[in-house]
Amino acid sequence: MFNSDTIVALATPAGAGAIGIIRISGEGAISLAAPFFKSIRNKDLKKQKSHTVHFGQIVDADTILDEALVSVFKGPHSYTGEDVVEISCHGSPYIQQQIIQLLLRNGCRSAHAGEFTLRAFLNGKLDLSQAEAVADLIAADNEASHQIAMQQMRGGFSNEIKKLRDELLDFASLIELELDFAEEDVEFADRTQFTDLLNRISTVLKRLIDSFAVGNVIKNGIPVAIVGEPNVGKSTLLNALLNEDRALVSEIAGTTRDTIEDDISIGGIGFRFIDTAGIRETKDIVEGMGIQKTFEKIEKAQVVLYLVDSSRFFPKRNPSAFGMPPQAGELFPQLQEIEKIRKNYPEKPLVVVVNKIDQIDRDAKANLNSILSKVEGIVVQMLSAKRNVGLEELQTKLLEFVNTGALKNNDTIITNTRHYNSLLKALEEVEKVQLGLTSGVPSDLLAIDIRQALYHFGEITGEITSDDLLGNIFANFCIGK
Amino acid sequence: MFNSDTIVALATPAGAGAIGIIRISGEGAISLAAPFFKSIRNKDLKKQKSHTVHFGQIVDADTILDEALVSVFKGPHSYTGEDVVEISCHGSPYIQQQIIQLLLRNGCRSAHAGEFTLRAFLNGKLDLSQAEAVADLIAADNEASHQIAMQQMRGGFSNEIKKLRDELLDFASLIELELDFAEEDVEFADRTQFTDLLNRISTVLKRLIDSFAVGNVIKNGIPVAIVGEPNVGKSTLLNALLNEDRALVSEIAGTTRDTIEDDISIGGIGFRFIDTAGIRETKDIVEGMGIQKTFEKIEKAQVVLYLVDSSRFFPKRNPSAFGMPPQAGELFPQLQEIEKIRKNYPEKPLVVVVNKIDQIDRDAKANLNSILSKVEGIVVQMLSAKRNVGLEELQTKLLEFVNTGALKNNDTIITNTRHYNSLLKALEEVEKVQLGLTSGVPSDLLAIDIRQALYHFGEITGEITSDDLLGNIFANFCIGK
Repeated sequence: MFNSDTIVALATPAGAGAIGIIRISGEGAISLAAPFFKSIRNKDLKKQKSHTVHFGQIVDADTILDEALVSVFKGPHSYTGEDVVEISCHGSPYIQQQIIQLLLRNGCRSAHAGEFTLRAFLNGKLDLSQAEAVADLIAADNEASHQIAMQQMRGGFSNEIKKLRDELLDFASLIELELDFAEEDVEFADRTQFTDLLNRISTVLKRLIDSFAVGNVIKNGIPVAIVGEPNVGKSTLLNALLNEDRALVSEIAGTTRDTIEDDISIGGIGFRFIDTAGIRETKDIVEGMGIQKTFEKIEKAQVVLYLVDSSRFFPKRNPSAFGMPPQAGELFPQLQEIEKIRKNYPEKPLVVVVNKIDQIDRDAKANLNSILSKVEGIVVQMLSAKRNVGLEELQTKLLEFVNTGALKNNDTIITNTRHYNSLLKALEEVEKVQLGLTSGVPSDLLAIDIRQALYHFGEITGEITSDDLLGNIFANFCIGK
Repeated sequence: MFNSDTIVALATPAGAGAIGIIRISGEGAISLAAPFFKSIRNKDLKKQKSHTVHFGQIVDADTILDEALVSVFKGPHSYTGEDVVEISCHGSPYIQQQIIQLLLRNGCRSAHAGEFTLRAFLNGKLDLSQAEAVADLIAADNEASHQIAMQQMRGGFSNEIKKLRDELLDFASLIELELDFAEEDVEFADRTQFTDLLNRISTVLKRLIDSFAVGNVIKNGIPVAIVGEPNVGKSTLLNALLNEDRALVSEIAGTTRDTIEDDISIGGIGFRFIDTAGIRETKDIVEGMGIQKTFEKIEKAQVVLYLVDSSRFFPKRNPSAFGMPPQAGELFPQLQEIEKIRKNYPEKPLVVVVNKIDQIDRDAKANLNSILSKVEGIVVQMLSAKRNVGLEELQTKLLEFVNTGALKNNDTIITNTRHYNSLLKALEEVEKVQLGLTSGVPSDLLAIDIRQALYHFGEITGEITSDDLLGNIFANFCIGK
């Protein structure tokens, strides 16, 4: 997998902009780039100190390709741990191509996706879970996922794993030492201390494994289903939530958000609205055939918003009906529906959103409230998506369903399925050892299970890897990272 | 227009990538950014040397926003001439937003489009025509337009203009001195030398003005019209040319070209195919109603490709017809058409492209060639767009129509309409002075015309500007540049 080629790639997004960065890394990075750099005082890039920036021209024989700033970083004090040169050129795709072609013609090779970070890993600048966090960090589009990725990149998770691994390793050595003295029947490893350690390890593993439930949704966004009869305002509600989010963002000139349209950040947590294309096109008929589709949506969700159009019970244009408080009977089909959802998915928070309250009067509101307050196991939110009334309260309620305790406590939260699987396997082995200890299994068998547990710890931080694994992980990176 | 605010903007293209650069410029750039930078050794950004890079965290109170490289540049040795800080952070839109928001909350202001380069101009780092070249350089997508923009950015054009202006200014001073001594009837300015200078200036101005014809097409691409009957292979030809161009580009991983689809670079020169959407959709009927549309296209073009489908004269499926050389009569409608184009647009190079030659035999080819060779004022190219035969020859022929002489000689070529207009006005004034000199116009009137010429020179390099003019020029820049 590893080789000492000097690699080059565009590290900034493609397209025209003010600045583009071309990154070169490898043993030959500086000497390879030096002949193509020309400054007024004829500086030799090879003689420059690490972490310095130099203004000059990038030249290809007699042709000036660009005026650029060239930064020099000397290994091991660089991102990759190798010598690195960064060329900050004009943000012109043509110029970037020309410079990269020039370098390719002169001994560089195109970097693979994630190859700079792979080298950082192979050179010991990052462990594997930290390297994986780099990709998560770039992908993070809200405070919570950013915070988790940042903690992981800075080694929070690795440190926790490494500490456990080191302690377990100490005991493994003692147990294996016993094997050498098998005939003398000695116990170097204190069984009580060892049991304590195993208990501690299994507690930590269980906590980390549990954190995946939160971590995974935070990374991918909390899935929310908006259901209800056609034309009760589902897409208006979604747009209102989206607009609040966007308004914040568009204040900053020059930055545009590149997220999937129906991901919304509320209070720093990402919410993902399920099947919103469907919301706009298909008719979610609550009764009859539609119920199947609604339930499929709820299946995928963690929180359910059930939308009701309050104005339907009080048509304004009908003077005789206007102002008449609704009777429970009028809401009957909806109440029945809500009941069904509650029964089928008792574990999923269900918010009944009463929309279009700008179209009904105070008495009607009070009456609706009193009817709905009798339904158990639901949360009610009255709002007008169109008039932007009650949206903030809804957002607050949505946030309450997210277990942000771990987040606030700065606990380690895992978000990566690979880590989750390794932790599960490690726990399984630890539990085998625990069982073996109580049932008096011989040391040689214990040692095998301990080694297995250590192996799975090592998978996470990358002490144990394979080319395939590394290939898979870094293929998901962008080129230039 | 100018103020001493500290400005901030994302300088790299928006979107996810490996690296993003946030640029800060202004008197307060370093001290403003310093509190949010935290390094292991507690470096103070304010105490760092110019042109150094520092690794650390960007922090907002207790939250680590990112690990980043921060470069410090001290005015006047920076792009803008002011203190500049560049934060090289992870290429995450979320992180970039957070950092920019942090800086905005703490005294920075969002930079306007082109404001960094505007400041470079106002601080004397670039003159106006050089600043304009920065935008051209970023937009350049082929060798020729890149070369012209680079030469202009490096001051080639400005130097030529400034030299003429200085010489003219010397004479202007002498002539104006004469006015002070008007009663004594002295001549400080040597009229013969002055006439020589004016002749030289007018020669240079005429050359520059003439270069605009070439410069403008190089900057915007040489317009080419492809005309001919329906289904003769117009879109196949265009795609074949496009593919050759693309193949070159796609070799470099990580760089994608962001050009309009029907711009093609041939031998470093951009060619722009006119109304190619139309080629694919509408029927260019050569006879009758279609001729109007064809002529409209030719009107906009500088080179005309007239496509003929050679196989139409020799249907392969008809054994009796196959192999029979065509008679001039069979080509009659086309020949008539070609004649019409030639007569109406004698100044536009006309290439008759005989397509699908893979479908006819040698005799037929020879015969077609001999018929077409008798038509005066056209160039003939036989090819098969589908089989990629003859495409290179066509490209060579297209290149021959471009006057690349000036380009090869590294002469100054102007590409900017604003410069062109100022040069025209300057020439007009210079010619007035020339006329005035020969007709013995009094010095005070001469002086007025000289001042006017100087004024127009000054417009080009920006010695004379207005806020409106600057606003117009820099509004076309991207934000962050």
